[in-house]
Amino acid sequence: MKRFQVVGIGNAMVDILAHAGDSFLAENGITKGIMQLIDMDRAVALYDRIGPAREVSGGSAANTIAGIAHLGGRTAYVGKVRDDQLGAIFAHDLRAQGAVYQTVMAPKDWPHETGRCIVLVTPDGERSMNTYLGATEFLHPDDIDPAMMADAEWLYLEGYRFDGPDSHEAFARAIDAARAAGGRVSLTLSDPFCVERHRDAFRDMIRDSVDLLFANRAELTAMYSADSFAQARRAAAAEVETVVATDSENGVYLLRDGMEFHVPAVPTRVVDATGAGDLFAGAFLWAMCEGHAPENCARMGNIAASEVISHIGARPESDLRALFRSHGVL
Amino acid sequence: MKRFQVVGIGNAMVDILAHAGDSFLAENGITKGIMQLIDMDRAVALYDRIGPAREVSGGSAANTIAGIAHLGGRTAYVGKVRDDQLGAIFAHDLRAQGAVYQTVMAPKDWPHETGRCIVLVTPDGERSMNTYLGATEFLHPDDIDPAMMADAEWLYLEGYRFDGPDSHEAFARAIDAARAAGGRVSLTLSDPFCVERHRDAFRDMIRDSVDLLFANRAELTAMYSADSFAQARRAAAAEVETVVATDSENGVYLLRDGMEFHVPAVPTRVVDATGAGDLFAGAFLWAMCEGHAPENCARMGNIAASEVISHIGARPESDLRALFRSHGVL
Repeated sequence: MKRFQVVGIGNAMVDILAHAGDSFLAENGITKGIMQLIDMDRAVALYDRIGPAREVSGGSAANTIAGIAHLGGRTAYVGKVRDDQLGAIFAHDLRAQGAVYQTVMAPKDWPHETGRCIVLVTPDGERSMNTYLGATEFLHPDDIDPAMMADAEWLYLEGYRFDGPDSHEAFARAIDAARAAGGRVSLTLSDPFCVERHRDAFRDMIRDSVDLLFANRAELTAMYSADSFAQARRAAAAEVETVVATDSENGVYLLRDGMEFHVPAVPTRVVDATGAGDLFAGAFLWAMCEGHAPENCARMGNIAASEVISHIGARPESDLRALFRSHGVL
Repeated sequence: MKRFQVVGIGNAMVDILAHAGDSFLAENGITKGIMQLIDMDRAVALYDRIGPAREVSGGSAANTIAGIAHLGGRTAYVGKVRDDQLGAIFAHDLRAQGAVYQTVMAPKDWPHETGRCIVLVTPDGERSMNTYLGATEFLHPDDIDPAMMADAEWLYLEGYRFDGPDSHEAFARAIDAARAAGGRVSLTLSDPFCVERHRDAFRDMIRDSVDLLFANRAELTAMYSADSFAQARRAAAAEVETVVATDSENGVYLLRDGMEFHVPAVPTRVVDATGAGDLFAGAFLWAMCEGHAPENCARMGNIAASEVISHIGARPESDLRALFRSHGVL
C-alpha cells in the first residue's frame, strides 16, 4: 500500500475574507466571481479599503487536501510559504487537519511574504478573489521530493500553480516520479483566465499525463475553445480517461468509458462559494481511493461542496463522513 | 462637542479560534471559561496541539470599541501591537470598522510579537482563553496622548491591561488628562483572576476615579471579597456612581441613585461566548452617549451580547442598530 492516497501541489495561501457590495467591486475594478492576480502594492491598497476581515487558511489544492485529511484519507501537500506569521498559520491548519506538509519555508528575510488571497464575498454568496502570490510563486523543482511523489496513488495538480517561473518544471518532475511508480495524475483547471494564460501548456499536459480532469463549465469551454459546454466535455473525454465537469447548481457531468453520467447538485443556500470546487475534488478523490463507484464519488463531492458553501471559509466545518451517511452514500 | 464619545485602552490581541472538547482542556491543564496568561513557549506548544483555527481581531476593549464604531459612535482605541502581520490585521480591522487607532507599533525587530489569544470553544459555547500578551504588555505612558484623552467624553479602561509593568502609570496619565477636561471614566474588571492579581490597585482606582463600573458576578464578588453577588453589588454601588453588574443568561443589574434595576437577557443559542461582555459594554456606552435612559442602554447591551454569542468571533456580524430597532429599543 502506498503511503499517500493523494499528494496535492498548489499555491499556498491564507484567505482574507470580507463582505463587500457589488458597488465596491465596481469601484475597485474587481471582476466578480473569478481570481485576479495582484501585486503587493495592490494587495496593500485593496486591504486598506475593505471592511473588517477574518483570516483562514486557503489555497485551492490545500483546501482539497484538507478535505481529504478531514475525511481520514492519507494525504500530503506541497506548496511554498515564507517563515512568517501567515506561513505559520497555513502550516498549522493543514497539519492540524492531519495532512503531511513538509515543504521548506522560504526564510524570514525573503522579500516575498506568504501569499494571500483577499476574498470579497458579495450578498449573493459569490466570491471574487484577489491573489498576491508572494512566496508561493517561487515553488522550485527542488521542492518536489520524488520519493513522496512515488508514494502517491494520485497526484492532484492545481492549475493556478502554472503561474510561476519554475512551476512547469516542478510539475513535470512530480508527474515523472509518480507515474514511474504506477501513480496516476489528476489536474484541476482552476479558472478560465488561468486557462487562457496557459492553454498550450495545459493541453500538452492533459494529453500526455492526465488521467482525471476536474473543470467547471467556464474552464472547460475555454480550454477547448468550444462553442458549448457539451462540445467541450466531448473534446476533453477524447483525451482523458475520466472527465469530471462541474456546473454549479446544475450538478456534475462524469465522462468515462465512452459514457456520460449526470449527478445533480445538493441544494443549499450559498453563504460563501469559496472552496466549493476544491472540496468537491477532495471528496471525489477520497471516495475513489476508497473504492466507491464514480457516480457515488460525485455524489459525495456534491455533498462536500454544499457543506462548504453554507458557511464563510473554504474548509469543512461539519463532519463530512456523517453528512455522507445521512445522505445514504456512505 | 468632544471629538470622541469613547476612548478605550486595553490589550491589543488577535484571537486564534478553534473548537476543542472538554477532555482537550483537561489534558492540557486549561481551566474552562477564564483567561489564562501564557508565555510564548506555551503559546507555541498549545498552538501545535489545537485543531485547524481561524484568526480574527480581538482584545476585550478593542472589541468594545469596534462595537461602538459599528454603531456609528465616535471612538478611538489605544493598545500596542508589533509591526508584523498579526499587528497589521489588528490595526486594519479596527480602522476598517471606523475607529481611530494611532498607537505607534513596536518595531519589526522588537523581541515580542503581536499578542494573541488562543480561544478554545467547547461544544457548550463556553470559551477558554490562553493569552500570550507579547507586545501589548509594553504599552508605555508615552503611548497615552493627553490631548486625545482630553477629547473623550468617556474613557473605557480594560482591567486586563493591569498586567504589565507600566500600565498603572499609563492608566493614571489617561485618567488625569480625561478628568481635567471634564471627561468621565469607566472600567471593566475583565476577569476574576485578574481581580485577584490587582485587587488593591483596582480598589484605589475605583474609589478615586471610576464613574461607571462594568463587572460580572464572579468579578464583582472577587473584587469585594463578598459572600454573595447581591452584597458585592451593594458594596460597589457605595463607591461608584453607576454599577453595571452582568450575570450571563440571568441578565444585568443596574445600580444608580440608590436604586437597583434588573434587565433580563435576550435568549440565544450560545455558539461562542467570546466577546459577550465586550459588546454589552460597547452598546451600553454608545447608547449612554446618545442620551438613552440607563435601562434602555442595558437592553441594547443585552441585544448586542446576544448577537455576538450567536456566532464564532467576538465582533458583530449583523447590523446592531437594525437589531435594536427590531426589538423596539431604538
